[in-house]
Amino acid sequence: MQTLTPPSNSPAAAATADARPGRARVLIVGCGFGGLEATRALAGENVDVTVIEKTNHHLFQPLLYQVATAGLAAPSIAAPARTLFRRQSNVTTLLGEVTAIDAAARQVQLADGERLPYEHLIVAAGATHSYFGNDDWATHAPGLKTLADAFEIRRRVLLAFEAAEREHDAARRQALLRFVVIGAGPTGVEMAGTLAEIARHTLTGEFRRIRPADAEVLLVEGGSRVLQAMPEALSQRALEQLEALGVRVRLNTRVTRIDEKGLEVTLDAGTPQATSQFIDSRCITWAAGVAASPLGRLLAQATGAECDRAGRVKVEPDLSLAGHSDISVVGDLAAAVSHVPGQPPQPVPGVSPGAKQMGRCAAGNVLLRIAGLPTRPFRYRDWGNLATIGRHSAVADVPTPFGHLRFSGSPAWLFWLFVHIFFLIGFRNRMIVLMDWASAYWTFRRHARVVHDVQAPQPAGGHAAPPPSQG
Amino acid sequence: MQTLTPPSNSPAAAATADARPGRARVLIVGCGFGGLEATRALAGENVDVTVIEKTNHHLFQPLLYQVATAGLAAPSIAAPARTLFRRQSNVTTLLGEVTAIDAAARQVQLADGERLPYEHLIVAAGATHSYFGNDDWATHAPGLKTLADAFEIRRRVLLAFEAAEREHDAARRQALLRFVVIGAGPTGVEMAGTLAEIARHTLTGEFRRIRPADAEVLLVEGGSRVLQAMPEALSQRALEQLEALGVRVRLNTRVTRIDEKGLEVTLDAGTPQATSQFIDSRCITWAAGVAASPLGRLLAQATGAECDRAGRVKVEPDLSLAGHSDISVVGDLAAAVSHVPGQPPQPVPGVSPGAKQMGRCAAGNVLLRIAGLPTRPFRYRDWGNLATIGRHSAVADVPTPFGHLRFSGSPAWLFWLFVHIFFLIGFRNRMIVLMDWASAYWTFRRHARVVHDVQAPQPAGGHAAPPPSQG
Repeated sequence: MQTLTPPSNSPAAAATADARPGRARVLIVGCGFGGLEATRALAGENVDVTVIEKTNHHLFQPLLYQVATAGLAAPSIAAPARTLFRRQSNVTTLLGEVTAIDAAARQVQLADGERLPYEHLIVAAGATHSYFGNDDWATHAPGLKTLADAFEIRRRVLLAFEAAEREHDAARRQALLRFVVIGAGPTGVEMAGTLAEIARHTLTGEFRRIRPADAEVLLVEGGSRVLQAMPEALSQRALEQLEALGVRVRLNTRVTRIDEKGLEVTLDAGTPQATSQFIDSRCITWAAGVAASPLGRLLAQATGAECDRAGRVKVEPDLSLAGHSDISVVGDLAAAVSHVPGQPPQPVPGVSPGAKQMGRCAAGNVLLRIAGLPTRPFRYRDWGNLATIGRHSAVADVPTPFGHLRFSGSPAWLFWLFVHIFFLIGFRNRMIVLMDWASAYWTFRRHARVVHDVQAPQPAGGHAAPPPSQG
Repeated sequence: MQTLTPPSNSPAAAATADARPGRARVLIVGCGFGGLEATRALAGENVDVTVIEKTNHHLFQPLLYQVATAGLAAPSIAAPARTLFRRQSNVTTLLGEVTAIDAAARQVQLADGERLPYEHLIVAAGATHSYFGNDDWATHAPGLKTLADAFEIRRRVLLAFEAAEREHDAARRQALLRFVVIGAGPTGVEMAGTLAEIARHTLTGEFRRIRPADAEVLLVEGGSRVLQAMPEALSQRALEQLEALGVRVRLNTRVTRIDEKGLEVTLDAGTPQATSQFIDSRCITWAAGVAASPLGRLLAQATGAECDRAGRVKVEPDLSLAGHSDISVVGDLAAAVSHVPGQPPQPVPGVSPGAKQMGRCAAGNVLLRIAGLPTRPFRYRDWGNLATIGRHSAVADVPTPFGHLRFSGSPAWLFWLFVHIFFLIGFRNRMIVLMDWASAYWTFRRHARVVHDVQAPQPAGGHAAPPPSQG
């Protein structure tokens, strides 16, 4: 159990402000796909919901790489959380960060000391990137989880080309034009494909001293194939499409060090042929490791729940915690298992449909509990797996009643476009993103090539980008 | 004359990279309205142009307040400088900051030590905000000149409402909901009017504990009327429109101190009734003082040119410097005078048409000089004066052959919309801004309400916003 420091803010007021008598108080932590769906599922119900969110917006994370690569403006994929709940009168949205959970007292504590009581708690705090214990790598190889991350990567990519145009030394210039993406999951593949497109098409004709097409894009992956969640044949198709776009893919390559000069990798790691190599690069993106939000550990401390290796909290079949049926965990923070009658339990993949379905299930179970009814086990409905690589390049694996439909290239790419436009939140965003994509498609331009915190590049051997604390 | 430190970067390479034999090398510093127009005016001419820009984009500054107030996304009003010059093959764009000028050697030095030679130099480095010697005020009252400024103000405004929703103490809550804009020039008037609209309309129904309409918007002005560049009758109309929108305007009120708690002002400053008052506020915007870029002083040191009180460089009738006809200064950095035959010389106002006209004139004079012809004096063509205040609220003063046309309210507002859409750079931006405005008009929503570097608010008496170095 967690001991709480005395609150600096009047807790009595907080305890009663948002809950009406006779109505259960549901606290939802996080407003990603899981938290958003849980909140929506409680619309019109006889409960009072408080959503606690660390940022002021719900982020459509599947398109975050497009903000990082200057294809979309941030507001196109982010909507203010409180606007989304505006018409849902039983929802109070609070900006704050949960720093402690007291399961016995049924309270969470926020960073400023304020305590919020709950009768039902749904934790949907998501995931962050993990450097596998090498947190110092973060300075040189930012990950891509938040809008601030996306701006930082956009800044580094665009300023690397700017610094190269200013650089007179050939070796340093080539290092500035070498872009490395670590991790060939969906985000890494999207980043690498888009960077290659930027170098080969977007920037054509805009520089006078360098040829942007001379830029190298390297995709470094520890495993033996890209997109490991995909069937092997689609991984192979994705690899071919990446190479056709100009991306150099290095499989079975493990990163052993990252510093301001570049990264050290071990090729054929784990085999007798293993060799070490240093790659000179000034712009590295980390898309390799995902770890659950630190809230998982807090929750484990507070309830005795177990976490898996990635820090995800193990949950009961109904997504609640063992011995704490008033607490549920959903989304990327949950090590959840899908229970389909007549089939062995299956782990739920960390994808947005999974998070949304868990959010709805946990909210439904809260209502069942309030009604004194038995809860329902979570059942994951698999809508398939989609990854885009670049122009007319994508792979899709869609389960149908007649078996899996697997396709790639233009059809998969069009399918990807349609799905992402469809699930984007807000009519305006759908229209704007469609327009931006249509315009980018025809002109090869990317309109969001704006860096708002430029520092003059330091071509004389300096690092092109200042530390990421500049946000 | 300026002494230069030895360059760390090979100057010989830089000296010859972008200039072809037999072509004069024109260096243009800055890519605001003045630098952009000067560069464009040299398209297709037998000169090699290098544009040195501190940020990577040309910014349409007249709409910057809309980025600050979450109405527009940054990429809608900012275009990459090198994209604008893509088809202009005689232009090289370099990201860098000028830190020294050597007029005798005809070189400028950048922050990293690289020197760039020129035959003709056009300096269009613009203006920044001035705190009249109180630079410590910047932390508590950011100004609005760059995209980073706009993001910082957006962050403070949105987080003030978020912190107020979390605050249990009534006095602190009211301080969080008190927004102060200092300076009632066009930017201050636009900011105050838009903030009032956000409080009264945009946020309606989104908060549960506070009423956003309880927010106070104060516009503090040292002079006796708002929009002093306008005729007195239009100032009066603007004042009435501001008050109708809910803005409280305090004229003849001088700011004497700004700290993390708010600002101290002197009412009826300079009269026997002068009284001092403290205004408790957590969100203050500085729109009062403008000072020329520090490059003005550098230029004065290097050439012996004179600066006026605001740091603007005094120029000859043809915009060149006395004794240095190879250096011209245009835009907000120039203390320029307009020479209309048969009329006394008139100072040029610091507005975008003035900067653009100066840019074209200076570029034309460079070509005349190269051709060995006499240069032309600058003649400012006054297109009038426009300021918007809010929905259906604006004032316009347009000179016509038949005298000045002065109007306000909806006609002026529609005229303002038309002019700003027309002068926005890029077809996409025009379309998107039109759509965003149409949508904001009908729904009262503002789509860019995204804060990418939220830090949890500290309602317990803390300052709602961390220091502005967070960019």
